[in-house]
Amino acid sequence: MAEIGVGLVGYKFMGRAHSNAYRQVARFFEVDPAPRMMALCGRDEAGVRAAAQQLGWEGYETDYHRLVARDDIGLVDVATPGNSHKEVVLAALAAGKHVLCEKPLANTLDEAREMLAAARAAGPGVVTMVNFNYRRVPAVQLAQRLIANGTLGEIRHWRAVYLQDWINDPEFPLVWRMKKELAGSGALGDIAAHILDLAHFIVGPVAEVVGTMNTFIKERPLEVASGGGSGLTAEAATEKGPVTVDDATTFLARFASGATGTFEATRLAPGRRNYNSFEVNGSNGSLVFNLERLNELRVFLADDPEGMQGFRTINVTEPAHPYTGAWWPAGHILGYEHTFVHAIKDLLDGIKAGTSPAPTFEDGFRCQAVLDAVERSVDSGSWEKPAEA
Amino acid sequence: MAEIGVGLVGYKFMGRAHSNAYRQVARFFEVDPAPRMMALCGRDEAGVRAAAQQLGWEGYETDYHRLVARDDIGLVDVATPGNSHKEVVLAALAAGKHVLCEKPLANTLDEAREMLAAARAAGPGVVTMVNFNYRRVPAVQLAQRLIANGTLGEIRHWRAVYLQDWINDPEFPLVWRMKKELAGSGALGDIAAHILDLAHFIVGPVAEVVGTMNTFIKERPLEVASGGGSGLTAEAATEKGPVTVDDATTFLARFASGATGTFEATRLAPGRRNYNSFEVNGSNGSLVFNLERLNELRVFLADDPEGMQGFRTINVTEPAHPYTGAWWPAGHILGYEHTFVHAIKDLLDGIKAGTSPAPTFEDGFRCQAVLDAVERSVDSGSWEKPAEA
Amino acid sequence: MAEIGVGLVGYKFMGRAHSNAYRQVARFFEVDPAPRMMALCGRDEAGVRAAAQQLGWEGYETDYHRLVARDDIGLVDVATPGNSHKEVVLAALAAGKHVLCEKPLANTLDEAREMLAAARAAGPGVVTMVNFNYRRVPAVQLAQRLIANGTLGEIRHWRAVYLQDWINDPEFPLVWRMKKELAGSGALGDIAAHILDLAHFIVGPVAEVVGTMNTFIKERPLEVASGGGSGLTAEAATEKGPVTVDDATTFLARFASGATGTFEATRLAPGRRNYNSFEVNGSNGSLVFNLERLNELRVFLADDPEGMQGFRTINVTEPAHPYTGAWWPAGHILGYEHTFVHAIKDLLDGIKAGTSPAPTFEDGFRCQAVLDAVERSVDSGSWEKPAEA
Amino acid sequence: MAEIGVGLVGYKFMGRAHSNAYRQVARFFEVDPAPRMMALCGRDEAGVRAAAQQLGWEGYETDYHRLVARDDIGLVDVATPGNSHKEVVLAALAAGKHVLCEKPLANTLDEAREMLAAARAAGPGVVTMVNFNYRRVPAVQLAQRLIANGTLGEIRHWRAVYLQDWINDPEFPLVWRMKKELAGSGALGDIAAHILDLAHFIVGPVAEVVGTMNTFIKERPLEVASGGGSGLTAEAATEKGPVTVDDATTFLARFASGATGTFEATRLAPGRRNYNSFEVNGSNGSLVFNLERLNELRVFLADDPEGMQGFRTINVTEPAHPYTGAWWPAGHILGYEHTFVHAIKDLLDGIKAGTSPAPTFEDGFRCQAVLDAVERSVDSGSWEKPAEA
Repeated sequence: MAEIGVGLVGYKFMGRAHSNAYRQVARFFEVDPAPRMMALCGRDEAGVRAAAQQLGWEGYETDYHRLVARDDIGLVDVATPGNSHKEVVLAALAAGKHVLCEKPLANTLDEAREMLAAARAAGPGVVTMVNFNYRRVPAVQLAQRLIANGTLGEIRHWRAVYLQDWINDPEFPLVWRMKKELAGSGALGDIAAHILDLAHFIVGPVAEVVGTMNTFIKERPLEVASGGGSGLTAEAATEKGPVTVDDATTFLARFASGATGTFEATRLAPGRRNYNSFEVNGSNGSLVFNLERLNELRVFLADDPEGMQGFRTINVTEPAHPYTGAWWPAGHILGYEHTFVHAIKDLLDGIKAGTSPAPTFEDGFRCQAVLDAVERSVDSGSWEKPAEA
Repeated sequence: MAEIGVGLVGYKFMGRAHSNAYRQVARFFEVDPAPRMMALCGRDEAGVRAAAQQLGWEGYETDYHRLVARDDIGLVDVATPGNSHKEVVLAALAAGKHVLCEKPLANTLDEAREMLAAARAAGPGVVTMVNFNYRRVPAVQLAQRLIANGTLGEIRHWRAVYLQDWINDPEFPLVWRMKKELAGSGALGDIAAHILDLAHFIVGPVAEVVGTMNTFIKERPLEVASGGGSGLTAEAATEKGPVTVDDATTFLARFASGATGTFEATRLAPGRRNYNSFEVNGSNGSLVFNLERLNELRVFLADDPEGMQGFRTINVTEPAHPYTGAWWPAGHILGYEHTFVHAIKDLLDGIKAGTSPAPTFEDGFRCQAVLDAVERSVDSGSWEKPAEA
Repeated sequence: MAEIGVGLVGYKFMGRAHSNAYRQVARFFEVDPAPRMMALCGRDEAGVRAAAQQLGWEGYETDYHRLVARDDIGLVDVATPGNSHKEVVLAALAAGKHVLCEKPLANTLDEAREMLAAARAAGPGVVTMVNFNYRRVPAVQLAQRLIANGTLGEIRHWRAVYLQDWINDPEFPLVWRMKKELAGSGALGDIAAHILDLAHFIVGPVAEVVGTMNTFIKERPLEVASGGGSGLTAEAATEKGPVTVDDATTFLARFASGATGTFEATRLAPGRRNYNSFEVNGSNGSLVFNLERLNELRVFLADDPEGMQGFRTINVTEPAHPYTGAWWPAGHILGYEHTFVHAIKDLLDGIKAGTSPAPTFEDGFRCQAVLDAVERSVDSGSWEKPAEA
Repeated sequence: MAEIGVGLVGYKFMGRAHSNAYRQVARFFEVDPAPRMMALCGRDEAGVRAAAQQLGWEGYETDYHRLVARDDIGLVDVATPGNSHKEVVLAALAAGKHVLCEKPLANTLDEAREMLAAARAAGPGVVTMVNFNYRRVPAVQLAQRLIANGTLGEIRHWRAVYLQDWINDPEFPLVWRMKKELAGSGALGDIAAHILDLAHFIVGPVAEVVGTMNTFIKERPLEVASGGGSGLTAEAATEKGPVTVDDATTFLARFASGATGTFEATRLAPGRRNYNSFEVNGSNGSLVFNLERLNELRVFLADDPEGMQGFRTINVTEPAHPYTGAWWPAGHILGYEHTFVHAIKDLLDGIKAGTSPAPTFEDGFRCQAVLDAVERSVDSGSWEKPAEA
């Protein structure tokens, strides 16, 4: 079995999840090449050294330029905050590496466009992928197939919410995810991006949008020793500073197909820890998904006999379902991190085949373009169309 | 115990539900005056005579002018399609009767304004009410109280859907509810009106909106012997005609308070029989309601101890809950029609007190004004504000 | 349309529910004869007079002997505590009346046997029925049909619980339902009787049982002004007395068919207000019911395609479902009291046809015989068979 | 950081789950010693060699005697079918190794007694543990704590089911799990053992039981190339053979504390893939767990204010919850295999401390003794007490 050397940039929340995926993928799936965890990369040497050992990397680098220059590394994985995606990805592509980029592709549409151009320029032998990991929930894959194969008929409605509450406490500090210069935007780019990507995956392209963005909590305590952590936990200082991104966003969409869509993302929904949920209604059925119960898909089929119709709750853990046969027997549920393992499985298959798997950089750009249109619509108060690549 | 004579106009779906309420209210609640079911009114004599007997009315009328002229009738209840609300209500008010008007108040904003003016002109002794019956689900009352008394803190988000599927079959005929001249609008005025009224009740006034309206199924078989029925069931002819109302609508809202709102109503959501559902997020908690499980309210309180937090499902059937103590012991659930009984209970209390209970004609107008703004926003492609009364 | 005069004995919890059923049945169902609510019967004249007026009865009696002697009464309904069922039913049968007897048929097996004999002796023209009302939940009817028509295949397992918590507070007083001389038994005869009757209805006869009965709270405050109320609410005195019935019972069953059964009934399950729930597993599918969501039936069909299997939640409110077409459109849910209306509908049909509808007195006896076997098994510590009639 | 060499016997379903735990534990938890995956053991050399590589073991052995003799191995993990547990465990203990034994401890009570004696004789420096992994679901740990710390008050009721359907198809072949000589028993020892262990963990010792065991499908196709696989999947031959274990069992229990218990385990519950569910009722509250939604615990607290009571669904994924802080942020759910990681974490802590963590061999014996009493009660038709160690 061939191997491919992997270099991962970033070792906080996403870095941990990506590392786990590289460790696990060949234990459960047949992959060729298998990933070899060559080096973890981060600027703080003590931190990256400890993380490399903890997470199972053979070595580490403190400068991504050195990482992308290594001959023993064929795949560069970028799992840093969005403000550094572009520079690392461009360097890796320039070095001829395959690239996995954590979502969102970039913090701005211009950056995303430049990255897409670079990926295209890199030629067919260079595989690129954006890690919208929720596409690889087995239940989400099943949902997509039921629509792609026509089971649900013509799709009329998409409605999705991504609700969290981790910053509901106004004393939660001003971490990097609340600073525009680092995160690009707040709920919009972080979590609305996920449900928008799922909409693109399941329903198709969004043609125009109109929306809102709100910052309900306008200032917060500064973070003690502000760093590059996940930003999901932090210690608060006494002094306060301004929140420069949105806590919450809502938008309406018209899909190119004619379907309607509603989207809402907020970090201020008490009790909703990580509630990424969507419903689709087609002419012949409906389906409902909720990430907090990610092993389940609820499906209604209008063709079921009269009197016997109802939403069925499919426990998506069976050999007949996407990915799940590689894990455990039916009914033995999977967790959050499995989605990353599935992504790496598909990425390695793509490298083998010389084909960039979805979500591609085009998908990443398209998502960015719609988020950009949402921001423009907030300013204009009217419907806006996403830019073309 | 005093009695008040009641005359009801309309005897189809709403007429049956209102009749039931008059029959039941004094059996379960203390009311003074008690309703006396004097006359049912409809144009078709055979139909109205049979219905009067079936539904428990002492007599009937075939002309609403005669009904409103009767001395033995003190309360006129208008449960016809929206296109006749104005004329009947104005006649009843002119005759000095108390008036209950089924929602929506009218098919157009101009009609609603005229009706509101008439109600105001009728003076304090004349009690008026619009029957948005879902305000009187006990769980909805509880929801409203938890917000009114500050339990949920500052309200940031409202999201509501009203999903149905009764016209999902394209062979379902072109009943009155799909004709603009009779129904005014489709999903918008029929069911979005309900969730908008609930938003007004629970969160407060909507300040501006932007939305969509869609007619996915553009023509349908004509109805055989089209009549004044509920329009929820009908027989189809071979010939087709155009659907002139929306099947579906979505809109975003900004509340006067600064909260955001999302609304969606559709009659094309397979498997959603009567799914009127809303969620509210406040700074201190959240709540979730769903009409298909109307005896339950899900509530999250951010003040619950760490590690013990979660949405609690309250079975809203206890003596401590609104209305329910009058019915059965805790856990013995109520159904759809009970909401009408509660409305009549409150209306009779209002008549006793000489005070129009909510939802008032002002509330009905305000709802109509927002629906009107939604329609305008569809045309303009921009945010629109509701008109003032 | 013919009428039948009805006399009802008892006017507390069950009396209210039965009265409602007589008032409502002809408003929603076609019945012939229609019930005429002639007289309510109770020993306390002031109480029964007020109740008769409140509940819609034309008159009242204070002595059941007078009630059963009235020529204008053709149907006697016995809704008193179990200790008086036998005497009233025997008197009514002796007078040639049709009889509806609230469950359980009697407090002891000997009484039940005597009542069954009397019903049989009364001849084919006299219709009798025991009111196990939960058979008439539409979802329960649907469950029974899916088994009777073979959809679920060979039945292997029944598991049922009836959980309540209304006496969980040890300061709740010693009402009649906790006194053996009035109630016969506690959780066993009151609520285990219900799930046992459902098992008989859905799966078939129980052949043998072994069980437990427990009285966890052994004494309670006496009731202030102890009376014939429902016993579900009461005021507590300072002095205490012994609880002489069980709070809780569990038992295993072997059905005659070879299926296994588990049963549990308790009044000490905090949070379970009225949780009557069962699950059936057959060779070809499963179904799940829960009274707190009585409008739903969850059904699993093993014949659904691989990968698309799951419990479907059927909203049992459609025209295709039992009883529900007479009420409201699909998705407009029913409540607890509707089950009584359905029972009276079927009883009146039985009177028309001259056939005693199920649950018959035989069914009532069979239920009593199994409860009796449970009590014997508690003493013997071994499996016991129910007595034959 | 110190290391301990691990040798694992068995590499099918349980072997895969245990291997994963050794690979993962030090990536997420601080452990000292850390496990070093020295050797996997199995009789088929080609199979064990391939598995060792797939699962991350440094080497392999084909004879457990050689495994337990190795100096570089300090911990022997026995994950074979129950019929070989005793011999391997005794050999490992004789060699002075720490031992983890997959549940059930043994196939017979006599074997379990002998193993317990050996564990006791091995002295305090030798750590032993039985792997009832479901104790280490975070929600189960939370449940146990809420009872141990008195939150739920005096416990009155335990009811548990473990429902599966993987052999519901009568054409599923006669794998080792359906042969008494290999598996000891069927649903009883395989899955009832789990819920019994949970009952012991959460409520305390069972004092007596009475039950049933059934074999509904009495013969099945032989297995093609019958082997030591998990037995959860297999290929069927044409010839049939007799099923010698139970498909299903039910039993009642009296706990030493006075609480009542009901238990049911079956492999013939269509739609229930892996439905291990229990409910506990105490004087002050209730809780409900279901393995198919293992990240959730439903808790009812009787002290919640009147009108605000309800089962709360706790998403047991927060830093405040057992184990979960080591994984991902709140709301990012865990899966089945995480329970094994938690078990190894606690085992390694026990090795560090020189203390055998629960479930100990005493716990394993106690479970076996109750299962034995269930079997005796099936023969005697009466209540039976578990043997003492």
